[in-house]
Amino acid sequence: MQVAQAGELALLVGRDRRTFIIRLTPGAHLHTHRGVLPHDELIGAPWGSWRHSHLGYPFLILQPSTDDLVRDLKRNTQIVYPKDAGYILMKMRIAPGQRVIEAGTGSGGMTLVLAQAVAPGGRVYSYEVRPEMQQLARANLERLGLAAYVEFKLQDIAAGFDEREVAALFLDLPNPWDYLAQAHQALANGGFFGCILPTTNQVSCLIDALEKHGFGLIEVEELLLRQYKAVAARLRPMDRMVAHTGYLIFARAIVRPEE
Amino acid sequence: MQVAQAGELALLVGRDRRTFIIRLTPGAHLHTHRGVLPHDELIGAPWGSWRHSHLGYPFLILQPSTDDLVRDLKRNTQIVYPKDAGYILMKMRIAPGQRVIEAGTGSGGMTLVLAQAVAPGGRVYSYEVRPEMQQLARANLERLGLAAYVEFKLQDIAAGFDEREVAALFLDLPNPWDYLAQAHQALANGGFFGCILPTTNQVSCLIDALEKHGFGLIEVEELLLRQYKAVAARLRPMDRMVAHTGYLIFARAIVRPEE
Amino acid sequence: MQVAQAGELALLVGRDRRTFIIRLTPGAHLHTHRGVLPHDELIGAPWGSWRHSHLGYPFLILQPSTDDLVRDLKRNTQIVYPKDAGYILMKMRIAPGQRVIEAGTGSGGMTLVLAQAVAPGGRVYSYEVRPEMQQLARANLERLGLAAYVEFKLQDIAAGFDEREVAALFLDLPNPWDYLAQAHQALANGGFFGCILPTTNQVSCLIDALEKHGFGLIEVEELLLRQYKAVAARLRPMDRMVAHTGYLIFARAIVRPEE
Amino acid sequence: MQVAQAGELALLVGRDRRTFIIRLTPGAHLHTHRGVLPHDELIGAPWGSWRHSHLGYPFLILQPSTDDLVRDLKRNTQIVYPKDAGYILMKMRIAPGQRVIEAGTGSGGMTLVLAQAVAPGGRVYSYEVRPEMQQLARANLERLGLAAYVEFKLQDIAAGFDEREVAALFLDLPNPWDYLAQAHQALANGGFFGCILPTTNQVSCLIDALEKHGFGLIEVEELLLRQYKAVAARLRPMDRMVAHTGYLIFARAIVRPEE
Repeated sequence: MQVAQAGELALLVGRDRRTFIIRLTPGAHLHTHRGVLPHDELIGAPWGSWRHSHLGYPFLILQPSTDDLVRDLKRNTQIVYPKDAGYILMKMRIAPGQRVIEAGTGSGGMTLVLAQAVAPGGRVYSYEVRPEMQQLARANLERLGLAAYVEFKLQDIAAGFDEREVAALFLDLPNPWDYLAQAHQALANGGFFGCILPTTNQVSCLIDALEKHGFGLIEVEELLLRQYKAVAARLRPMDRMVAHTGYLIFARAIVRPEE
Repeated sequence: MQVAQAGELALLVGRDRRTFIIRLTPGAHLHTHRGVLPHDELIGAPWGSWRHSHLGYPFLILQPSTDDLVRDLKRNTQIVYPKDAGYILMKMRIAPGQRVIEAGTGSGGMTLVLAQAVAPGGRVYSYEVRPEMQQLARANLERLGLAAYVEFKLQDIAAGFDEREVAALFLDLPNPWDYLAQAHQALANGGFFGCILPTTNQVSCLIDALEKHGFGLIEVEELLLRQYKAVAARLRPMDRMVAHTGYLIFARAIVRPEE
Repeated sequence: MQVAQAGELALLVGRDRRTFIIRLTPGAHLHTHRGVLPHDELIGAPWGSWRHSHLGYPFLILQPSTDDLVRDLKRNTQIVYPKDAGYILMKMRIAPGQRVIEAGTGSGGMTLVLAQAVAPGGRVYSYEVRPEMQQLARANLERLGLAAYVEFKLQDIAAGFDEREVAALFLDLPNPWDYLAQAHQALANGGFFGCILPTTNQVSCLIDALEKHGFGLIEVEELLLRQYKAVAARLRPMDRMVAHTGYLIFARAIVRPEE
Repeated sequence: MQVAQAGELALLVGRDRRTFIIRLTPGAHLHTHRGVLPHDELIGAPWGSWRHSHLGYPFLILQPSTDDLVRDLKRNTQIVYPKDAGYILMKMRIAPGQRVIEAGTGSGGMTLVLAQAVAPGGRVYSYEVRPEMQQLARANLERLGLAAYVEFKLQDIAAGFDEREVAALFLDLPNPWDYLAQAHQALANGGFFGCILPTTNQVSCLIDALEKHGFGLIEVEELLLRQYKAVAARLRPMDRMVAHTGYLIFARAIVRPEE
């Protein structure tokens, strides 16, 4: 039976479904709304078992999913939701060994998903202009043990990307149309372009610019996630849901005649 | 500039958006509704460039995305759609190096996604009872160069799984409730359980059985994918969409008191 | 130019979009979070004009829509949302002059919509067993001037409905399958049956019972309403939405061979 | 027991769910894909009973719902779907006795719904510039016995509407922003404005124009209708659905300071 080890990440889930993600550290304590859990009582606990706080409140100790990790990130910005991130992997063939660019880094939510997907042989080049955001994302990725797969760059992409021949490039910033020449230059010919945008006006503007900058097979999609109350005798959708995270735009870098 | 090599997979997309996926083979020919493309004229072509059939019809030559590969699979069964497959990766922490079970194999659509996500160090154990389905899936995975990461098993899972301590287990079959004791036994404690089911009655039945077999944190979700016409000046959703692929059920294997 | 008259219903909408519905009464005062509006200053105001509270906060004075009226109802129960109510009118041919049964009355939200749609020549027979609910619904309908089109009945429908040959019958209660013989008896042959239910288990149970009680052309549908931020340069869906109000079930009363 | 009378509208539904709407006429015959049904055998049949074609194929005879009527309309244009039409009634307080404008008439689908909702005391003023469309709509409404509530006008609304002080005005045409001054002039102050548009670009353009022409409380919404397979033991959504009919835009005519 596998037990939680010092140094591992652990997800603690209270009976009320409130969650905490910690790195297990001898001598440390997790303070919750339902009492304290000393890490030393968690280290050595079988994964998937119940532990109790000093107030007797039960918590399940588990290894976190990617979805748990993304939702738990310390963040100052809107993150790419796991429903979108997983689909982006499928549409842009993010797979072990790939070299991938993203901009901006933001809080590192998409960086986390990309890093995990290209490991161990691949690499994520993550651009950001705000030092404090980069610092936050780097701390987030280091905490998760994924920073080794990421090269954090504090640069304005208006000046271009340093890399060439990358397999995929993802933009999560408000004015992607300003960086398409740079994106085309960094991508391998035929490479995967992806973007997420909140408004329809931005989507129209991006489609127009993609057509002018040598991109083809443009697709616009959105994903709606509907959650259900998991009660066997009274199965029904939750009352409310997230109605919008962003429109996803995908395209391919086409070789232009003059090239 | 990267060019298509003999032995590589290529996606050919006609100007009308009809697609073909082939493995480039010297001497072979691709016969389309718009004329013939000799592989020898595709080998050496820059990725992302236009080639013409003998009738002069233009085709774009690209490396396929995971989404393209799944949609192109030869299949006898309903496949797990990429929108669902990508989300399953996020919810079940399918990552490089993991050991994962799936049953049944079906046409191999989910097998493909799992194999690509756990490569190079991980392994997919894929169970199926119909020999002809397994053969199809194996052929599909071999064609994509992913069979090395999969162990195909022609076995009835009623007798149990051969593996122990696997990180994640995914069931895509009509009566998952019949195999939960076996699933719990194969999973590492705290491991990820996932399932896809078409009807609400099946979902209710599974929730009930999961609760009885030592699973916790049960979640039921569904994803709706909405595609847009990517025209900058007339942006709008497509007229029709896929309304239902399946309900996704996730749970964690809990350590029971007696264990 | 039409002006607000004493005795009319008025909708007041603050600049912050908070709304109030009142019956204009000489001498009365509307107390809002942004100051007081004396009815005497509203009476005689042009509809569609701005009025100010004693604190100078602007309010628009308008005639309320049916949607406004339903949302404003004093209620102790879940109401039928306008998106569902409007569709029910279309599916059950609720039109001026019809005789329609509903049970239970609840807070009167659906009663309001039905009464308005069958007026002036039609009639709504509305059954309820909880006296306090009936009283609330009656007060709601009287306030809106629609009580004349409704016959409120404080009766258990297990004993049957008093009416015969009604054009349409709508059930909004948790166990509709218990009243299908009574419903069939009250409906004209070929009449319209409708129901709203929150869980999938209830829907399955009702379909089964409808088939056994001489109903045909059974349909199950649901409506999702998505609202957008109405900003021309930044058009996008709202962040969150109501994900579930209920499943709508429609059927027709079929003449059985023995009849 | 009510029986079908000569002169009434009847919906015939084959066991395969194919539908036909006819006006019962002595001596006439309904020719279906499953044989002939003489009207004389339908006249006198109880509503809600089964009749057989000369080939023995069973058809249910019913009174059509508004939904049935709209879907059955002879049409040359996109119609307003019943899900949208019903909601429009709720948002624009279309009720018995109201005076309402619509433009363009199109095939008369929305005209039908409006006419039925304002009858018997109200009136629909329906504008159209294409004579052949108006003729089709008029024939459709006459066939349904609703033409008495409609004034069909063959006029270009650029020159303004003939009516004043109407309660509600609905535009279903591609460039509504060109007619907002005319709309504001025709509407009662505070009156209800509504519109349906297919693209996001049109919605942005309309919002902008509404703000400039004295409209307030602008709302943008859309409705998604999801249908289920009504099988008690295997309840599930249909495989495919209509993903987009149009965006609904609502606003109120505000009294401008200078007025």
